[in-house]
This record gives sequence, structure tokens and C-alpha cells, in this order.
Amino acid sequence: MLLATDLDGTFLAGDPQDRLSLYQTIAAHPEIRLAYVTGRSLEAVLPLLADPTLPHPDYIISDVGASFTHGDSLQPLHPLQSQVDQLWPGESQVASALEGFDLERQDVPQVRRCSYFCSPEQAADPALREAADALGCDLLYSADRYLDFLPRGVNKGSSLAALAAHLGLDEDQVLTAGDTLNDLSMLNGRFKGVCVGASEPGLLEATQAYSRILHAQRPGCGGILEAFAHFGFLGEHGIAALQPQTAQPGKAELVMVYHRLPYEEHRVNGVLQRRRPTSPNGIIPTLLSFFGDGRPGSWVAWAVDDDNGEAFETHTTVDAERYPKLTAARVALSKEEVDIFYKRFSKEAFWPTLHTFWERAVFNEDDWQVYLKVNRSFAERTALEAAEGATVWLHDYNLWMVPGYLRELRPDLRIAFFHHTYFPSADVFNVLPWRRQIIGSLLQCDSIGFHIPRQVENFVDAARGVTPLETVSRQNCAPRFVTYGCAVGLERMTTAVSTGSRVVRLEANPVGLDIDRVRAALDDPKIREMMARLRQELASIKLILSVERLDYTKGTLEKVQAFERLLEENPELQGKVTLVCVCVPAAKEMTIYDALQAQIEQAVGRINGRFARVGWTPLQFFFRSLPFEEVSAWYGMADVMWITPLRDGLNLVAKEFVAAQGLLGGRGVLVLSEFAGAAAELKGALLTNPHDPMDLAQTCYLALNMPKAEAQARLRELFDIVTHHDIRRWGEDCLAGVSAPAEAPLSAVLEQAS
Amino acid sequence: MLLATDLDGTFLAGDPQDRLSLYQTIAAHPEIRLAYVTGRSLEAVLPLLADPTLPHPDYIISDVGASFTHGDSLQPLHPLQSQVDQLWPGESQVASALEGFDLERQDVPQVRRCSYFCSPEQAADPALREAADALGCDLLYSADRYLDFLPRGVNKGSSLAALAAHLGLDEDQVLTAGDTLNDLSMLNGRFKGVCVGASEPGLLEATQAYSRILHAQRPGCGGILEAFAHFGFLGEHGIAALQPQTAQPGKAELVMVYHRLPYEEHRVNGVLQRRRPTSPNGIIPTLLSFFGDGRPGSWVAWAVDDDNGEAFETHTTVDAERYPKLTAARVALSKEEVDIFYKRFSKEAFWPTLHTFWERAVFNEDDWQVYLKVNRSFAERTALEAAEGATVWLHDYNLWMVPGYLRELRPDLRIAFFHHTYFPSADVFNVLPWRRQIIGSLLQCDSIGFHIPRQVENFVDAARGVTPLETVSRQNCAPRFVTYGCAVGLERMTTAVSTGSRVVRLEANPVGLDIDRVRAALDDPKIREMMARLRQELASIKLILSVERLDYTKGTLEKVQAFERLLEENPELQGKVTLVCVCVPAAKEMTIYDALQAQIEQAVGRINGRFARVGWTPLQFFFRSLPFEEVSAWYGMADVMWITPLRDGLNLVAKEFVAAQGLLGGRGVLVLSEFAGAAAELKGALLTNPHDPMDLAQTCYLALNMPKAEAQARLRELFDIVTHHDIRRWGEDCLAGVSAPAEAPLSAVLEQAS
Repeated sequence: MLLATDLDGTFLAGDPQDRLSLYQTIAAHPEIRLAYVTGRSLEAVLPLLADPTLPHPDYIISDVGASFTHGDSLQPLHPLQSQVDQLWPGESQVASALEGFDLERQDVPQVRRCSYFCSPEQAADPALREAADALGCDLLYSADRYLDFLPRGVNKGSSLAALAAHLGLDEDQVLTAGDTLNDLSMLNGRFKGVCVGASEPGLLEATQAYSRILHAQRPGCGGILEAFAHFGFLGEHGIAALQPQTAQPGKAELVMVYHRLPYEEHRVNGVLQRRRPTSPNGIIPTLLSFFGDGRPGSWVAWAVDDDNGEAFETHTTVDAERYPKLTAARVALSKEEVDIFYKRFSKEAFWPTLHTFWERAVFNEDDWQVYLKVNRSFAERTALEAAEGATVWLHDYNLWMVPGYLRELRPDLRIAFFHHTYFPSADVFNVLPWRRQIIGSLLQCDSIGFHIPRQVENFVDAARGVTPLETVSRQNCAPRFVTYGCAVGLERMTTAVSTGSRVVRLEANPVGLDIDRVRAALDDPKIREMMARLRQELASIKLILSVERLDYTKGTLEKVQAFERLLEENPELQGKVTLVCVCVPAAKEMTIYDALQAQIEQAVGRINGRFARVGWTPLQFFFRSLPFEEVSAWYGMADVMWITPLRDGLNLVAKEFVAAQGLLGGRGVLVLSEFAGAAAELKGALLTNPHDPMDLAQTCYLALNMPKAEAQARLRELFDIVTHHDIRRWGEDCLAGVSAPAEAPLSAVLEQAS
Repeated sequence: MLLATDLDGTFLAGDPQDRLSLYQTIAAHPEIRLAYVTGRSLEAVLPLLADPTLPHPDYIISDVGASFTHGDSLQPLHPLQSQVDQLWPGESQVASALEGFDLERQDVPQVRRCSYFCSPEQAADPALREAADALGCDLLYSADRYLDFLPRGVNKGSSLAALAAHLGLDEDQVLTAGDTLNDLSMLNGRFKGVCVGASEPGLLEATQAYSRILHAQRPGCGGILEAFAHFGFLGEHGIAALQPQTAQPGKAELVMVYHRLPYEEHRVNGVLQRRRPTSPNGIIPTLLSFFGDGRPGSWVAWAVDDDNGEAFETHTTVDAERYPKLTAARVALSKEEVDIFYKRFSKEAFWPTLHTFWERAVFNEDDWQVYLKVNRSFAERTALEAAEGATVWLHDYNLWMVPGYLRELRPDLRIAFFHHTYFPSADVFNVLPWRRQIIGSLLQCDSIGFHIPRQVENFVDAARGVTPLETVSRQNCAPRFVTYGCAVGLERMTTAVSTGSRVVRLEANPVGLDIDRVRAALDDPKIREMMARLRQELASIKLILSVERLDYTKGTLEKVQAFERLLEENPELQGKVTLVCVCVPAAKEMTIYDALQAQIEQAVGRINGRFARVGWTPLQFFFRSLPFEEVSAWYGMADVMWITPLRDGLNLVAKEFVAAQGLLGGRGVLVLSEFAGAAAELKGALLTNPHDPMDLAQTCYLALNMPKAEAQARLRELFDIVTHHDIRRWGEDCLAGVSAPAEAPLSAVLEQAS
């Protein structure tokens, strides 16, 4: 059968439960072909195609019948489209013919038709009809306000009839649905049809004589469901015979969905063993802490199913003592899937794009299909874990597509997402071939968290390019965040948007630091000893410290070059300062970093070759991972911490330095890139523009020469922020936002916003 | 002397003429040192520093006295700052101490103070004062609403006194100005002072006994001017003795400021000769046409002053017959200035950044200084040309800094700007070290035009990061522009913003084509002959055409690689299609393009080597400039026009192809990058994402196989747009917007917006 339905007031309307039921019915029945038949233009239909909860149409008849489009390819449907094209005189011909009529063009997309605003007096002008005749157009006037010029003889009914004939469909196999007079042409008794509840009285009147047209009770999708039953589509028992497609709820009241398990798995003599993560970044323990009160929970993450004959364990306990009701739910991935999903595709396609290094992005459709499959597996596993109405908390861009899948499976869940990585503006985000799907999925969340307001606004910017959004609420960014003082600052941010069917809360909440971890490192006697030794060695030297992973986003090469400039332009610094760079190499298989590594090494060699003296090495480069405790000792000893990413979601290293210095009562100066997310939070840092070689060198110079009192005051302000907004507060704030019910029901919020 | 003035209600207030007069007085008197003394935080002062019409302060005392900053370096002023720092307990200490009081934090930037909203009942709580005492803070309660915690003993007066002492200034040399009670501490009779007109009654009452405090009549800057006279600052005749700094008006009612002269200059046997531009892009004749009605006008452009002993001609006629009252006003630049300003700096720093290729941008402060000098020269020349109240129309990013200089010199002018190049989002724009100055200058325009709404919104995004803006009006982008159908589409755009002192209109108006030029080319008998020959040669071959300059923004390499994929994946095309690439080389000195050229050449060689057969060359690459007429012949013969810029302001080549095909009644298919500005305008083009190799190849395949009827209909729609919105209409629409008075006075507009 073919369901040919109007959109606004019909397929997009009705009780939420009815909508869900109809959409799931269609999804479950591949034999139902679906045609949208709408007054919208294709452009105004595109946002709907990005909504993963709406069934994807096989055909789109848009522009009140003037446009025919394949649902999958979004290409025109021939020969139907060409037939209409031949009837259409062209937009500027219509516009020219109407120049004398003082009509205002409607500001909506229009193709093969021209739409105007028109008063009843203007519409009564016989010259208008003459103009239409001369153009070879039909004139459609509706609601005492809207005037449409259409290709002659073209309307929803004629176009639907053409489609049915094109598909060779018997008229009995077509069910039409609508709610206003502009649907009359397809509700004229030729096909089976339904005027859904709350239809326009004129439509009901005009169709009451037709035996094949049902006047349904329930509005929107409810009315269509009535018609399915009334006309006996879908077999004897109709809808009632359908299995619900939603998953059966599980028991977890909170489901954490993270790419890593909360423990590490190792094979020892062939036996799988678990340990606590060896290099915790502080987030996993915080996320675990939400299960410390005995809350029934689940932690969904992937694990390699290496197909070694052993049965794959889907569930394991995490720590029965500390988190008695927490289960780890493992999503089985093959080694190859892990490589593509996690190592290759995410790093090649998404990582550079998110950081605005779009020139380096590589897009591969096959990889995207693997990504979708893995995300689908995460969603299915999560759907089985979550209790009725539970909260699901998803983390970062590896899981972008989970909300869309999950919402279809479990409309009842509260879905929250935290985006740990930078989020770029639409300009940059739009290079992604899958931008519509990604945004469509994310807009199924109830709340989305980012580090800073700029990332929130960039997300809104990207989302606005995919679908119409109403701003529900905004707020000032001060005093929590920097406004005009840095490149990623903003004065105001959006805190909620509405998609029409959902209010999505948006939050800026930068991840905090686990201060105790730094404290523990500094309390370690070996580290104290190391610091004492360093203090001696560096007695007459000012130490500039740099700590980062090897990555083009980090600006390491630019920093090293700026250091050369600093020594060159300020010869008095030679012999007096040392730059220590700790650069943690990427995994060996990440060959994309090889060229960068070579460039850095070459620059380091050049600078040391140029400036070194006996007893003084200007630049010490540690191309290896150091234990956190050792890094903490360096933090404690640094006079200047020089953090210069070209772009960074946040930068926790800056906070680690501040914590170490603060705990030791130091007065090291934090020089921070104004393009790191942390720049919007860490008031007291000396900000630098790493894209400007002169500024990089000058700001470092300023830091080296900062008066002690100022350095002390700045560090105090920074330490204040880092200790106050620590990782625990971040977790609590996030979870409060995630779990809180929307402040008001959607209808109330929307009313307020309008 | 030192003028120490409050900002809001004082230095930023008053009659516009008084403001101008005071600001110009300060600018003309280097001996006047200026200190802002304000309740704002430094961050909230930053937007003012970006306003070129405001005098730049030497010192900034912000946060009600708690912060001291050097005006130039924006670094703290020591030891004054450190002294206050020692008194301040820290933000989170204050926040913690006040946790029980249920006070809401004010959402404005705050440093070394904490500001809350507080009812009179809450303020009366003695525990509040106890808390302040315990913290070592002063409590300031004002306007029955605002509660501030400040470092003990710190206020505007104490901090100003500290500054005066630090500078070794006699108290008589200081003039203070304010309008509310929070200025009382610096208007307490210690310094000379003025309560400007419309001051808070409480302030007037509190200061009426002080003989050294003037109660002025005029509000804001007017009151400060009264005080200058009253206290006899600036010598015997005070302000009256000043020469006005504004330029004397010229005679041009319309001044066109373009980087090129409207004719070409050539030296023939040592004598300078003029001709019409040899390769007009259609814009210069259009801009000239506005002077065809005898309107008194001036065309400001640079010319090389080669210092050859001849006197430099500052003014020349353009075409006495056609434009009787138009003069060309030449801005003398040295050869080196031209090289830096026009060839090097603009291409190295701005071109890549504007096109979002920020990784390729190179910033050099010395070059920026040359750029400023040249822009200043343009502004000075323009100021001398323009009649009172004249309209000045500036073009493109080479002249970004002209509006700021010009507004200072000539506040009376209507300044319009058209931005011909892509404008990126804040994310990308902010890498520019001079972003604040550029935005500050552009916001001195009365109107700014861009090609498409996305560029307008990106400008607003960038401007919002520099200064607070109110949106005055918005409109839907349809039906003129694509909304959700392409990467640079948008549903709504801003049409006016207010900076508080100016409403800036924003327009999206894509440059149109000179159809007659294409028509003339196609009418040329030699070209007809060429087409006939090509038609024969290509009888059994489908021609894919690509025409562009050699530039990394154009996506040529990506296209060539996609062509390889196309042949590889669709072997049936081998021997049946030919890609002709016309790639116009860059000027020889542009070595940055060498690597790209080599890569393209290598790819072309590889593809031809791999696929060519006797009698069939898959890819013909013309690495040279072809005459426009010849290119038009290729346009006419192409089956598919393949335009794939990774980013493009507009792309006129697409329009040229459409015009040629339309004039010849052809049905060639336009495949256009959805990242070209033209994609938002040219409905009917087949859009492609050039960042996605698969999509590039697939869309080209679709175009090669498009049904004739569809191709015809699409071309008709495109030709309709290109002919209707041609270069003349663009010029008329722009000039109408440029010359129109703002729809309503600023005050009315602002009232409406609030």
C-alpha cells in the first residue's frame, strides 16, 4: 500500500503516543510505502528527513503538487517532474507579470510556484486572474491571505494520481490523509482517504458525501491509525496485531555510556583480568561515584570480542563493594571494528573537523557505516539496560549517533550528552558529509553539555543550518566565563532550544580537576626528592614548561619556533631560561603524526644547535610519556607554564599546573592559548594568540618578567577557580542538569518563547 | 593634565556633537592624559577600546577602583594593582561566606569584587556586614538593588588618588568627572571635578559644598567640556581656540573607493597612458554607471608613485563625456607599499583566513602597519573628496580599516561597505591578531553588504565576540536564498544591528553578471566558428568543463582526483567523457601556489597515463589564461560544468556558464559546490560537497546521466535567476540600500528592539 499524507496538521500532528505508534507501525512494515504530500517546498521538508524518529518517505510530493522527489536520493522523479516543469513559466516571469499588483512575496521556499500575501480586495481584482491565464497558471487563494500561482492543473490530487499511475498502484491500495482544504484534491473520493480529527470545517463539508473518505476522531496520526483500522489495512487485526517495537526496559536507573569500561582488561596467561585504569584522567572515578549510593546502574562500553571460542561476557560486575548495583554492559566489537570506529575514523574524520583543522579531515563512507553499526550496538545495549524513565548519559563524539537510535527504541528515556571535544561553527562542521544525521541525532537529547559557551553557540549555529530551532532561553556568560577577553569568549549563550517537539537544554560546564590526585602525587616522597633535586639544578635558570600530547592541535611546533624567536630577540635570556617540553607520542599506528614529529624534532635540533652553550641546553624535549607524579614535580618547579594549543576543547593540563602550584604555594605563571576552552574559564591566566608568532614570543617574555606580586595574585585567583570548580562539582552540576525535569512542560515553554 | 572620567552616563553620554567635540579635543592634545574610572570590569571596557572614534585611555581603573590597567599594553599597573590584590580575599571565599544568604550573583564580569542582587530587606541583615568584616571587605549597597563586596578601603576615589600619586601629578592637574553616587569618592573636592548634567540628585547634594566641583548644565561629554572651560584647562581660550580636526568637505556626492582605478595605466615610451580595463569583471562598469547621470563623484584608488621626478597627479578625469563630473582621486603608494599591501599581506594573511583556510595564514605585524598606513591614506583622500553628507562606498577587505579612520575625520558621511570575499565565522576570524580593530572599524559603517546570508551571520558572530550588539531586525532568507538545501544556506538572517551609538544595516546581495558581455562574446563570428569546430570534435564525447584560477580554495586537485575515481568506478565512461580544466595561473611572484600546481600537474599526468587511449585524452589541462570569448565558447559546448571550490565568496564563473548556455538554448548541467556563495542563490544547480570525494564523483556521474528534460528545466530556472539578478540590478539594489536613510531614528529603533 501507499500512505500519501499531508504533513503539517496531519502526519506531524496528533497525540505523542499516536505519533509514535504510527511511526513505529510504518517502520515495522516495509510493505507500506510512504509519500509526503505537502504544501512545503523540498527545502522545508529536509529538516524532517534529519529527524531519526520520523519514518523516511519513499516519495515526496512538495510545493502543493508541483515537485516530485525520490525519498532516498532526493533527486527528481521522472518523467513526472518533467511533465510539471513544462507547464511552469518560471519564477521571474510570474514576478514580472505581477509587478503592478503590489503583492508581497511570502518568505518561504518556493519552487515551480510563486506565493504571495494578498488581501481579499486584491484577490478580487479580475486582472489577477487574467495575469494567471496569460502565464498559463492556476491561481489558488486560501485563508483570505495566501495567493499561489501554480502550473496549470497541478495540485496535490493530480500529482498523487500521477504518482500512483507511475507506480502502477491500484487506487484501492492508496490511503490519503489530510486536514485542510488544500488536501481536498486528494480527498475527493478517488482514493481511500481520511480527514483527521480537527480538520478544517470546509474540508469536512466538502468530503462528507464521499463514502471512501473517513472523518476520523483523533487528530493527526491518531486519525491515520483509525483509517488503517477502518479500511482494514495491515490485515485482519490491523494495528492491534503489531508487536511493539520498543525494547523492554531494564533495571538501571542511570546508564553511563562511555567509550571505555571503568576498568582495564588484560589477558594474563590467556585469562581475562580486570584492574583499575592505570592512567585515570579523573573522569571515570567521578562518573563511577554516582553509583556509590547504591543506585541501580549500568556502564555501557565496548569490549573486543576476539572470537577465541570463549563465550563473550555481556555483563560483568565493576566493584561489588563500592558500587553494589552497578553492572558493566559490554558491547562486543571485533578487532577491526574497534580499529575503524575508534582509532581510524574518529581520528581521521571527526577529530580534525571538530578542532577546525578541516583541511586534514578524511571522509570515507565505508568507515561511516561501521561507525553507524557500532553506535547502533551501543544504543541497543543501552535500551536493554535502562529502566522505565531512566537517565542515560552519553559521552563524546564517538557516540554521536546513539541518541537517534536510542530515542526510537526508548522514547521514555531522559538522554543527556556531554561533548568533551571542541565543537566548531557551522562553517567548519558542515564539511562533514553526514552533518544532517549527526545533528538530527543530537537533537533527540534532552540536554547537551559542552565545556564553554562558545561551543554551545557553535552547536546552535550548526543545528540551525539543519532544522528550524526556536531559542527558548538565553543567559549571560559572566561572571563564570570570560566575555570579551579571549578568542573563545562570549557575552551571552543559549541555554535551551526547541525543535518543535522537544526542548533541548544546553549547558556550558567545563570539566574540573581531581585535585586529590595532584595532591597525592606531590605528597609522594620520591616526587619531593625529585623536586628538591630539580630546584637545585634549576637554581639559576628560569624554567618554562610545556606538557601535551603530540597532536597538530596543540601548537607545539609554533611554540618551539616562538621560543627560538624569544632567544633571538632577547639575547639576555640566553643561558637564563630553559624550555622543557614533555610531548607524549601518539600510538605507533597513528602515522599521521609522523611528519609533525619530524618537524618538531628538526626545530629542536636547530635551536639547540644554534644557542646551546656548555652547561646550558635551551630546549629539553622529552618525547615520551612521563608518569603523572613526575609531571606534577615539573609543574611544581615551573616558572612559566606555556600552553599554546591552536584549538582545544578545554585543556586539563592547565588546571593540573595551577593545582600543583597552588598546593605548593608557588607563583608560576600560566600562559594559556586564548583558543583553549580553559581560557574562557581560567581568569588569571596570561592569554596568548598562538596563531600570531609575535604574540607567542612576547607573551612568554611578559610571563618571564612578571612581578612576583602579580604572579602570586594571578595564581591565587586561578587556584581559587580550579579548586572550587573541581571534578566533583562538575559531575554534580552535570547530573543535576541531566536528571532535572524540564522546568516547564514544552507547551508552556513554547508559549513563553513565542 | 589627567582627565579621570566615569564612563556610563559621563564620558559615553551627552549630545553627539558634544561627544565628538570632546573626543576630538582629546585626540588633538597629546598632553591630556586620559583615565577611564568605571564600575565596569576590564572585559566590559574592551569593546570600547575597539571603537576607533573613542579616545584610547592611558589608564583604566575598573571594577569600582579594584583594577588598574595600562591602556596600551592592557597589563596590570604595578605596584598599584598588587596593593589591591593583597586586600582581596578571593571570589570563592566571598561566595562561600555568602552561601546562606540566598543572594543572586549579578551576571556581569567582576574581578576583585563580587556583585549580587539584593533586596533592601536582605541588605538590612546585620549578618551581611559581619560577613563582610570577616572577609575584610567593604560593602557597597546602591540603587536599592546592587550589593558589592570590595577589597577594604578601595573605591574610585582612593584608586584615582593612588594613580595620581604614582604618576607624580599635582592634584590641580587632575579633572574628575562623574554622574552618580558611586563617583562621589573621586568628586569629594580633593581634585577638580565636574558632576555632568543629569547627575543623580544625591551626588549633586553631596557635592554642593565643594568649591572645586562644578555642577555642569550639559549632560555627559558636554558637561566635561564645560569643566574644561570653567577650570581654564587647555589655555586661555580653552576649547574655543581649537581647530576642528575634521576635514573640509569636498564636492563628490558619491565616492567610490575601490582598490583599482576605473582605467588601466600603462607607460608607453615613458608617458603614462590610460585605457579601459582589459579584463573587466563587469563590476567596474557597473560602479561607473552610477556617475552616468552627471552626479558629482570621485573614484578613489591607489596608483604607484614611482618617484621618477614627475609630479604625482592626485586627480585625473575618467571619461569626460560619459561621466562629466567624475574624478579619479589617486592615492600615491610606493612600489613596496603596493607589494606588501596588495600582493603579499592581503594574500598571505587575509585571503586564507577569510576562506577558512586559517592553517595557511601568515601574520606579520610590520605588514599590518603598512596596511594601516595605506588604509589611512585612502581614508584621508576620501575625506577630502566627499561633500557634506555624501555617500562613500568602500569595497572589500583590502580597505577594512578605512571606515574607522574615515568616521573620525568625517562623522557626517554615510559609509557603505561591500564585502566581495567570503566572511568566516568567529571561530576562524578570531585567529587574526587584529580582529578587534577590524571589527571596530567595520562597525563604523552605516551598511555592510555581503553576497549571502551565511556571510552576514558569520560577520555578526565575529562582531558579537568583540562588542555587545543588539539585533534590530531579522528576516527570512527564502525565497531569494536557499535555506536548508546547502552548506551555506540559512533560514533567517540579521538585517540590522545596533552598537548602541549606530545602527548598521546588513544586506545579502550577491554580485550579478554582465549578461551583455557573454552575449557579445557568443556573437563574435570567430567564437561561433570555434564552437562549430568543437561541436564536431566532441561529437561522440561528453564534455565536462572546469574553469578557475589556480588557488587552493578552488578544489581543483580534489576535482581531478574525483575524476580519476569516476573513470575507475564507471569504466563505461572511459572513451566517452573528457574533462577540460582551464586553470588560470597566479602571478609569477605568488610562490605559495607552486606546490599546488605541481600536485595538480602530477595528478593530471597520472590520470592521463593511466586511462588515455589512442584518440582519447581523458583530461585536458590548460594551465594558462584564455580570452573570455574562448572561455565562453567552452561554456557553450560543455555538457557538465563542474565547479567545486572548497570555499568561495560567490563564484561568477557559475553564472557565466549559465548565461552562455541560456543564450545558446543549451541544456548543460551546472554542478556546483555547496560551499560556494552562489550555491545559496542558484537554485537549479546540482550541488556537491567537494570535501567528500565520494560525493564529488557521484554527483558528476549524476550530471552526466541527467535526463534531458530535467537538465533543460534546471537550466531554465538558473538562467531565469542569472538574467533577473544581473549586475545592474545588483548595483541598483546596493546603492538603494547604501543611500537610503535609516528607516527610523536610532532611538526609535532601539526602543522597538528592547
